[in-house]
Amino acid sequence: MYRPPIDDYDFLYTHVFGDELLHTLGYSELDAADVHDILTTAADFAVQVMHPLNAVGDRVGSVLAEGVVTTPPGYVKAYRSFTEAGWVGFGLDSEIGGGGVPLVVYNAVSELWTAANTAFSLCWGLSTAAITALQTAGSEELRATYLPKMVSGEWTGTMNLTEPQSGTDLAAIRTTARPNGDGTWSVCGQKIFITWGDHDLTENIVHLVLARTPDAPEGLAGLSLFVVPKFLPSRDGGVGERNRVTTLALEHKLGIHASPTCVLEYDDAVGHLVGQRHFGLMAMFVMMNNTRIGVGLQGLGVADRAYQQARDYAEQRVQGRVLGRPSGAPIAEHPDVARLLLSMSSSISAMRAFSLQLGEWCDRWRRDDSQQAAQLAEFFVPVMKAWFTEESVRIASDAIQVHGGMGFIEETGAAQYYRDARILPIYEGTTGIQSNDLLGRKVIRDKGATTALALELITSDSASLRQSQHPVARRTVERLDRAIVCARDTTRRLLELAANDRRDAYAGSVNYLTMMALIAGAWMHARIISAALLAHPEPTEDDLRRLREADFYGAHHLSRVHSLAEAIREGEIE
Amino acid sequence: MYRPPIDDYDFLYTHVFGDELLHTLGYSELDAADVHDILTTAADFAVQVMHPLNAVGDRVGSVLAEGVVTTPPGYVKAYRSFTEAGWVGFGLDSEIGGGGVPLVVYNAVSELWTAANTAFSLCWGLSTAAITALQTAGSEELRATYLPKMVSGEWTGTMNLTEPQSGTDLAAIRTTARPNGDGTWSVCGQKIFITWGDHDLTENIVHLVLARTPDAPEGLAGLSLFVVPKFLPSRDGGVGERNRVTTLALEHKLGIHASPTCVLEYDDAVGHLVGQRHFGLMAMFVMMNNTRIGVGLQGLGVADRAYQQARDYAEQRVQGRVLGRPSGAPIAEHPDVARLLLSMSSSISAMRAFSLQLGEWCDRWRRDDSQQAAQLAEFFVPVMKAWFTEESVRIASDAIQVHGGMGFIEETGAAQYYRDARILPIYEGTTGIQSNDLLGRKVIRDKGATTALALELITSDSASLRQSQHPVARRTVERLDRAIVCARDTTRRLLELAANDRRDAYAGSVNYLTMMALIAGAWMHARIISAALLAHPEPTEDDLRRLREADFYGAHHLSRVHSLAEAIREGEIE
Repeated sequence: MYRPPIDDYDFLYTHVFGDELLHTLGYSELDAADVHDILTTAADFAVQVMHPLNAVGDRVGSVLAEGVVTTPPGYVKAYRSFTEAGWVGFGLDSEIGGGGVPLVVYNAVSELWTAANTAFSLCWGLSTAAITALQTAGSEELRATYLPKMVSGEWTGTMNLTEPQSGTDLAAIRTTARPNGDGTWSVCGQKIFITWGDHDLTENIVHLVLARTPDAPEGLAGLSLFVVPKFLPSRDGGVGERNRVTTLALEHKLGIHASPTCVLEYDDAVGHLVGQRHFGLMAMFVMMNNTRIGVGLQGLGVADRAYQQARDYAEQRVQGRVLGRPSGAPIAEHPDVARLLLSMSSSISAMRAFSLQLGEWCDRWRRDDSQQAAQLAEFFVPVMKAWFTEESVRIASDAIQVHGGMGFIEETGAAQYYRDARILPIYEGTTGIQSNDLLGRKVIRDKGATTALALELITSDSASLRQSQHPVARRTVERLDRAIVCARDTTRRLLELAANDRRDAYAGSVNYLTMMALIAGAWMHARIISAALLAHPEPTEDDLRRLREADFYGAHHLSRVHSLAEAIREGEIE
Repeated sequence: MYRPPIDDYDFLYTHVFGDELLHTLGYSELDAADVHDILTTAADFAVQVMHPLNAVGDRVGSVLAEGVVTTPPGYVKAYRSFTEAGWVGFGLDSEIGGGGVPLVVYNAVSELWTAANTAFSLCWGLSTAAITALQTAGSEELRATYLPKMVSGEWTGTMNLTEPQSGTDLAAIRTTARPNGDGTWSVCGQKIFITWGDHDLTENIVHLVLARTPDAPEGLAGLSLFVVPKFLPSRDGGVGERNRVTTLALEHKLGIHASPTCVLEYDDAVGHLVGQRHFGLMAMFVMMNNTRIGVGLQGLGVADRAYQQARDYAEQRVQGRVLGRPSGAPIAEHPDVARLLLSMSSSISAMRAFSLQLGEWCDRWRRDDSQQAAQLAEFFVPVMKAWFTEESVRIASDAIQVHGGMGFIEETGAAQYYRDARILPIYEGTTGIQSNDLLGRKVIRDKGATTALALELITSDSASLRQSQHPVARRTVERLDRAIVCARDTTRRLLELAANDRRDAYAGSVNYLTMMALIAGAWMHARIISAALLAHPEPTEDDLRRLREADFYGAHHLSRVHSLAEAIREGEIE
């Protein structure tokens, strides 16, 4: 049974981020109680519709036969309910018919849905990305033709970037688009790893395809973006002729089996140019932050679901005598199992709070054009994507460990999370790519100015916690301060390395990102316990858990910062 | 293509452990050149027979139909070749017809075989355990009936401990054995998770079953061990009547699909008591060290195989421009990919050397009855089991990461290692169990005396390296010294915690074990580079790799010791 963390979110919105956040963001109509209602409704859908299809989706998977993709039993109906409830456009701008909720709320909803069914969630996740690209770069006509259908969920959207020789390196794309003379283009080429590239959930699928025009320069600057629908839209708003795009194969994957990962063949398929010729990459960059955040939230969702399953098992399984406990105590009480569970939950609590913090920055950037918020968001988006997804793999693995032998049996369900999670640190940019982005574009480029800004913000933000005499508060502040000193030193050292030999700096990029993630997580715990100590003079049961998690995070997770610093200092070992 | 690490082993036997090791162990007939020949022969078998069946075994798996288990295509033939070459008994005592090679040699052979095909290797691995138990505790008659057939591999053996309510806690076993009055017993009950519990490789299978006699006391002291063959042996040395043991089901597992994991039903099956009544657990303990070492070696094997696959892919895959390298450089040259590969290989080199060190202690214990060797072996067996298997999961995961999206596609093969590896830190005692064994029986019980002995040995052993002016040697010694100081402090602190509240100490058991593993690994690197610097005044290509690995291990892996110490100091967070 999946139990959406509504109480946790209530606490975060009410005590940690507070009503004033939503108001200052310009959502004076929203308060914490409204957010609670939204989350409850989304949670019901996650629990009643999405999660029951998670295991069958894994077992049966989506299947290709005679050119037609069939999704697992129940998926067509679930998707219909999803669109009828208006969820597809929920996080999109109201001017294109979306729900217009801020990211600081939408991120929470995304967590619940991806926790309930990651493979299913990829469908609307990719649609949302395609919508944003069309909305930003598409002509009036393209927007009018496609956006209403896509925002309602009647049609889904896909992103077509990867080719066999072109994964991380988009400059190697070979798919071509030739002008037909009538304003349309003929698209030819093969795309791979196309998530939900074909399926039976909707009557039409709208592919956004990166391709090269005949006059295109070499490399990234020569890429243009095209919209290529599976069926050409008819004048009456329905679908007309079948376009020349074929599903050649589905990949046989380690996880997310319900999500059809397609090899698509474009054979003179009719397409329309999106935005300007040779500016295809610009349209991609627009949505890149959002898709990275989306994948990060998949990590959080899978991690929480795996954790819940491990905790539930450990709390009911009795196996031998537990040290210092009366007989009949469940294995959750073994000191080492308790350590594993606290390791997971303290990481999840930090990630959940940080997803709201990052949402807030993105909202302020978009709404108020705040330059500081933009700077912090750009800095922390790659951190969040890599952090949340790497943690999801670790936590899903620990969840199996808690189960012992039962965790290795597929029917138990823990193994699915371990398999599903493994793609998350890879797609939408591997952990290495996120780390290089952080180091190159956000640390070296401004000589550490944003790092300094972030570390100052964290230091000043923990001022109220410094007043507290609570032993956990004192330890938390002391550890955070030490970690920040270490991060400042390390940043200085990295900049020196980069000035001398950039390979030396880049060899430390992942460790540096991890260091920033650990500090961001500890910051969140500082805010959580600060809010808890302020909210309740006498700590509640939940507050005691929050104090335990903060203390654990500091001793077990944040302490890694100092080892990472030692590794980073060495530069490249050669 | 799997390439057995013969060169590495040659270096270890010739320069790190040395011919004199084998001689002092009493194997004056063996030298490094003989070991090279043995390994080459075993490697040929691994490469030509076992590894080609690894992927098909995963894809097809062993199947149960109408009560009969069928192994994947090719397994029957491969097993026959294995027995015909005399490999089953290779590591067993010569007095029962085995090859009589020391563990310091056999461990290397085991690595190659489990690397080539982990699921297949479980079959002879479990047989070996059953043989050792029968050899130690069985009557003259039982030994005469079963051992020749099992040592030759004509029959296989299994271990039947687990029941649904009884995993880690064997005291909860409910299977019963009633005397029939003719010296035989009637065994009734259900056993689960029985590895290679049924199959079509041999005409007979010899089950060793833990059960309770009618007069048995409660708990562990009431367990007796029985031999229950699938077919009762006939007088002519063949098989007679079918015994009343049935395969109810095979588990549907995350990995090691070729290995049939059986639910076995004993319904008045005929059995013979092995050893004394109520001393069943003693017979188990005899072989426990060996089975733990065996599983540890599975971890090393899977880790190396996963690493090789990742390295091969990274060395041929070209994707975009590599920082500071000419165009066309493969992704292996990206600083972060190079970091991942070096992280894996430096860990594997440390484990491989340590498997020989542990083998040496076990050999000295068995051959010379050396008390110091026994003490060190007992201390490090749980460390090795947990260390090697946890690393195998991490390395298999990193191997997927190096592949990017291709790693998530099953046909690539990297995913199988990630799935196969996940059982290793669980079976034969989870990492938590190994850590509790280490802390309780080997640290707290002797008040840290063995820890002190081990740390002194490591310090004195690095004396020759202290003479070297090589910068890597200096850094390695400096880091090792710091880690040893940290480990001494931590041990003292743990003993204080244990004196006060044992739960506080046990909450740190896994982190403590990890600390000891990291130090043991760094010690191995110190020995390896010490030998390399001594062997070749002008370092060879391989020596440069060894120096790189040692330096990386110190900066990236060993540095974790200090964070672990901080976590351990805190005790239980509550």
